[in-house]
Amino acid sequence: MSSTFGENLKLTIFGQSHGPAIGMTLDGIPAGQAVDTEKLQEFLNRRAPGQNDWSTPRKEEDRPEFLGGIVDGFTCGAPIAAIIRNTNTKSGDYDNLKNCPRPGHADYTAQMKYGGFQDAAGGGHFSGRLTAPLCIAGGLCKQWLEEMGIRIGAHIASIGAVSDAAFDPIAPEFDKVGRLFPTLTAESAEEMRAAIASAKEQGDSIGGTIECAITGLPTGMGEPMFGGVENRISQMVFGIPAVKGIQFGDTQTYGSENNDAFTICDNHIETITNHCGGILGGITNGMPVVFRVSLKPTPSIAKPQQTVNLQTGEITTIEIKGRHDPCIVPRAVPVVEAAAAIAIYDLILGNTQASRRK
Amino acid sequence: MSSTFGENLKLTIFGQSHGPAIGMTLDGIPAGQAVDTEKLQEFLNRRAPGQNDWSTPRKEEDRPEFLGGIVDGFTCGAPIAAIIRNTNTKSGDYDNLKNCPRPGHADYTAQMKYGGFQDAAGGGHFSGRLTAPLCIAGGLCKQWLEEMGIRIGAHIASIGAVSDAAFDPIAPEFDKVGRLFPTLTAESAEEMRAAIASAKEQGDSIGGTIECAITGLPTGMGEPMFGGVENRISQMVFGIPAVKGIQFGDTQTYGSENNDAFTICDNHIETITNHCGGILGGITNGMPVVFRVSLKPTPSIAKPQQTVNLQTGEITTIEIKGRHDPCIVPRAVPVVEAAAAIAIYDLILGNTQASRRK
Amino acid sequence: MSSTFGENLKLTIFGQSHGPAIGMTLDGIPAGQAVDTEKLQEFLNRRAPGQNDWSTPRKEEDRPEFLGGIVDGFTCGAPIAAIIRNTNTKSGDYDNLKNCPRPGHADYTAQMKYGGFQDAAGGGHFSGRLTAPLCIAGGLCKQWLEEMGIRIGAHIASIGAVSDAAFDPIAPEFDKVGRLFPTLTAESAEEMRAAIASAKEQGDSIGGTIECAITGLPTGMGEPMFGGVENRISQMVFGIPAVKGIQFGDTQTYGSENNDAFTICDNHIETITNHCGGILGGITNGMPVVFRVSLKPTPSIAKPQQTVNLQTGEITTIEIKGRHDPCIVPRAVPVVEAAAAIAIYDLILGNTQASRRK
Amino acid sequence: MSSTFGENLKLTIFGQSHGPAIGMTLDGIPAGQAVDTEKLQEFLNRRAPGQNDWSTPRKEEDRPEFLGGIVDGFTCGAPIAAIIRNTNTKSGDYDNLKNCPRPGHADYTAQMKYGGFQDAAGGGHFSGRLTAPLCIAGGLCKQWLEEMGIRIGAHIASIGAVSDAAFDPIAPEFDKVGRLFPTLTAESAEEMRAAIASAKEQGDSIGGTIECAITGLPTGMGEPMFGGVENRISQMVFGIPAVKGIQFGDTQTYGSENNDAFTICDNHIETITNHCGGILGGITNGMPVVFRVSLKPTPSIAKPQQTVNLQTGEITTIEIKGRHDPCIVPRAVPVVEAAAAIAIYDLILGNTQASRRK
Repeated sequence: MSSTFGENLKLTIFGQSHGPAIGMTLDGIPAGQAVDTEKLQEFLNRRAPGQNDWSTPRKEEDRPEFLGGIVDGFTCGAPIAAIIRNTNTKSGDYDNLKNCPRPGHADYTAQMKYGGFQDAAGGGHFSGRLTAPLCIAGGLCKQWLEEMGIRIGAHIASIGAVSDAAFDPIAPEFDKVGRLFPTLTAESAEEMRAAIASAKEQGDSIGGTIECAITGLPTGMGEPMFGGVENRISQMVFGIPAVKGIQFGDTQTYGSENNDAFTICDNHIETITNHCGGILGGITNGMPVVFRVSLKPTPSIAKPQQTVNLQTGEITTIEIKGRHDPCIVPRAVPVVEAAAAIAIYDLILGNTQASRRK
Repeated sequence: MSSTFGENLKLTIFGQSHGPAIGMTLDGIPAGQAVDTEKLQEFLNRRAPGQNDWSTPRKEEDRPEFLGGIVDGFTCGAPIAAIIRNTNTKSGDYDNLKNCPRPGHADYTAQMKYGGFQDAAGGGHFSGRLTAPLCIAGGLCKQWLEEMGIRIGAHIASIGAVSDAAFDPIAPEFDKVGRLFPTLTAESAEEMRAAIASAKEQGDSIGGTIECAITGLPTGMGEPMFGGVENRISQMVFGIPAVKGIQFGDTQTYGSENNDAFTICDNHIETITNHCGGILGGITNGMPVVFRVSLKPTPSIAKPQQTVNLQTGEITTIEIKGRHDPCIVPRAVPVVEAAAAIAIYDLILGNTQASRRK
Repeated sequence: MSSTFGENLKLTIFGQSHGPAIGMTLDGIPAGQAVDTEKLQEFLNRRAPGQNDWSTPRKEEDRPEFLGGIVDGFTCGAPIAAIIRNTNTKSGDYDNLKNCPRPGHADYTAQMKYGGFQDAAGGGHFSGRLTAPLCIAGGLCKQWLEEMGIRIGAHIASIGAVSDAAFDPIAPEFDKVGRLFPTLTAESAEEMRAAIASAKEQGDSIGGTIECAITGLPTGMGEPMFGGVENRISQMVFGIPAVKGIQFGDTQTYGSENNDAFTICDNHIETITNHCGGILGGITNGMPVVFRVSLKPTPSIAKPQQTVNLQTGEITTIEIKGRHDPCIVPRAVPVVEAAAAIAIYDLILGNTQASRRK
Repeated sequence: MSSTFGENLKLTIFGQSHGPAIGMTLDGIPAGQAVDTEKLQEFLNRRAPGQNDWSTPRKEEDRPEFLGGIVDGFTCGAPIAAIIRNTNTKSGDYDNLKNCPRPGHADYTAQMKYGGFQDAAGGGHFSGRLTAPLCIAGGLCKQWLEEMGIRIGAHIASIGAVSDAAFDPIAPEFDKVGRLFPTLTAESAEEMRAAIASAKEQGDSIGGTIECAITGLPTGMGEPMFGGVENRISQMVFGIPAVKGIQFGDTQTYGSENNDAFTICDNHIETITNHCGGILGGITNGMPVVFRVSLKPTPSIAKPQQTVNLQTGEITTIEIKGRHDPCIVPRAVPVVEAAAAIAIYDLILGNTQASRRK
């Protein structure tokens, strides 16, 4: 169902890059959940553009206005609704997108699907800008999960050929992740920034991977087959533009290596390793849920590219001007956290358990 | 929603490995769709166990009995219902699973979720046997898609360190895939069978990857954000036990390499390359949809493994007897095709298009 | 979604009147729910035909076979699946239904919808026989609700011009309802049976109304707007063939009469009257939920009726032979209870509450 | 699912009576649908308060601002989002609602459900004001249906003991409905206005019924069992505050009277009468869909009423000041049309047909 997500909560993301506003409605949240708007703003700032050398210079204050669902700092049981006005739009930059679709973008598929009625300016509803309302919803869910002792954190796992260290899958080092540039080690941060700068210089873009971990989840969460934790997280995460792959845990070649042996630790059951990424049969086993998503390089590059003029039917060349991130991976880190938070909170709302113990 | 899938169709998979029967209901299928039961049986036979040296010796005739929804070889608009009786169950083999969960299996998470009420025999509802009804639903969807000119095919991309050739992402060579052992090249088949045999000899199991392609899809299929082709296929595919990852297309490092340039071919628009796997912005671009799933090695291995006795709380050792595949990847190939067929058919049923062309 | 119901549970009803079997799958039920199959059979027997003079002489033993989801008398967390074989089918009786649709039946609309592919025998999937699997699901939900102290009971409120007494909306007299013929008073039972007999004699059928009450519901159940108790019960209840109307409570003309004043009773808050039928703003107020459904007279009557031959396009006359109830209201009483039980149990599974008290 | 509706479209209604804004998101609408905002405004004006003597004097300009989904007068495929700012709120009027719930209102059930976190001012999310965004969504759907030749119209069927004429169920006289006061006859309008004035004078309120008809529907629309036209319309219509009942068609006592005989008219099949309200087996038969909803008298009355102070637990008396309609039935007429339009448009988007004719 296009821009609506959720089994137990219902999230709808709306707006287009150059329309009057973008926003979200989030229905199904229990009343009485505290909302810390300052903390939310800090979270949104992690995604906001224009802060540094590796992202688009478009400066857009991503400050949500809440229109419903929150009273005196608490959810009131009604749908939460929030909008962000679009103020800094330069539609002229995109005038020719409808006729000459940019390679790697949704311009062509939107044209074919919507028959020319799509909002082409700035990518319309397909713009990465729509991850801002996703982060409003996800930032809220993240707060509520934290109150339950559930933490979610992500870092850049790789950009191009440069890799960061991996999370310890038993005890992810959330607090080691860089604030300015979200890696576990300063060295990889430096190398990655160099790789991005190099791509930018060449009028190119560069892709990468993000690793995300979730700790504190109750054991026994998730439903068999199509309602498992993997199914639900992946359905959500592919809603982030540029995500092309997801992997849970770190599968080993042989069963004898890959199986996580059970043990007793502080009087409760754990596994010694965590190759399964905290999920067995779609259901949490109490260990951290760990997954990795791969993001393609942003398709907006300065280099000339071959495309087709849809009106004339002729092959032509496009040079994308506009303002674009040479690498969207750093800004996508909080978006992956937001996506995970929404999927997990949705699962928790609907978590069914045995009615009694045998 | 646990064992139920679909936006436009509603598939429910039911049954447990050692219960009276397994089966499926499939609601929402238009009337008048032809059903070729022989062709379906051939498809199911590709998944069936007991046929060769690399799969479990449990022989189970996977012959569905249709209880509703089909009249005189055509769907009648009512839900399709089919069951397969379980005839060859040896529950005794699994007696101790409830107390001593097998590493890598859902035994422990099921125990924690269902509080001891789960059907532990043979893995219960988490058994790979439940992929048989998935293949009934998927085999039917595959037939109906073929009538529309949409083909789905998969092959083993790798087992352990042995790789098969990849599909040509512009023109996947479906007819080159081996019938007995589904690889593109005979050499990789031989090497893979050797790798499986070696794992088996050592009382171990081995994992791998499967590549799947879908051709003939209309351009403009899929919805933005959470209803995209990637979201929907991944939500379904993680319903296959052992699947831990999925990747669409073959993302390249730089935007200039990864973007698929548009061109004109036989008077219609195509892309020269297909790194995006046929999907831009979640929507089909008319090129083949290509994705790759990774499967963990089956957790049932003969080697002794450490586990915990849930009743006594003591660490203990488990040796799994039973009958198990040393490698489930070959049998999972039609299952991946079935999963893709269900997700695609669901999308097609709900495909919304522009009401007119601008 | 056609034959599938539920937000938190997923019920699918399948089968056709003269197909191999009818049945249901019920997904999303927590593990550990006790199942009393004898009690379920008693409930199903209340609906079963052939027991008396006012129902069809077709004798069909409605004895479900459970194929999954129940182990040792408890739900196991996997979908519950049950079937009833169709044994006593006389398809010959219905041979001409496809060509000459019976007035008041779904024959014509099914033909138009399914283009001739529908299963016309015995009404196919539209047959009242499909209320048997509805009663399996509803009978189970009813048992589980009773364990929570929630009771559901219904009686015939009227048949033709003959009315029964109404339930006391504060304390419905469930135990006063007749076992053989479900009315509150013996006099109305007698008069109703006479009205049915009279209709039968004339080759006619007769309609009526059923009143249903639900006690013991927690206060604060139901969601605003489209997820209210009224919305959910009505969506379910219109799934019963012949139901054409539903009314909650007994609305009075003026606000001053209709408003139920609050009072204190045994230290908790109640209303003095219950005109609202236990629901305010879609949400339970702790008083009994009371509603009334109207059922049209069964369209199968012996009298000659005008119809159109769809093949020749000519107006013609149809005389329905077959075996039919002159009045389906008595047998519909447990079906209404089953429908209410499913809707209520679904609501309870998803009941969200404030996370803390202000 | 609380404030979200739809199988194929997804409508979410948000906002509270005295919050910053109310609004709606409407996802799943095909691109290229024309939007006539003037016509929409005319429709919204029919619901707006403060226009006459029988409605609340609160003057609120119900002028929606569209934030997304519409470009240059056409839908663009992205979710439609619209808001109406709340400008004329007097929260002081409602200060004591949390402590002393008004009889007949959702104050008490909201308090019990949301534990005090609900937005109590003006009824919060339960306010009749939320029917304004419902009318935005419904007014749009109505326009799109009209382009397909589907018309929806409603009139007041009764207020208290005063009845209007009924629609001709074969050819509803939409154009005869009064513009200022929506009845079919001027006499009933006058009598109804007198009945409302009389109730108002006595500090009371009065309820009534609304009849709605839909013409031009394709034959064969709706799904069996739980996805029928009756199920879907009723699920939506009970989302309108004050609606307590719904009846489709005008069921007659005996089958011989109630069955609608088929006939040939202008070379296509019709029924001579339309007692079934255009629906057989949940599916449209090509005749007008006709239904009637009953609305309770608005619970806000000036007369003193008994309630309970939730803080002190003492019985007390409440006198509601505020600004209230003595009868909401006239203003509910366009709301019922809106609700019907949304349900029907949702059904049309998902309408499955036989793939070929037999």
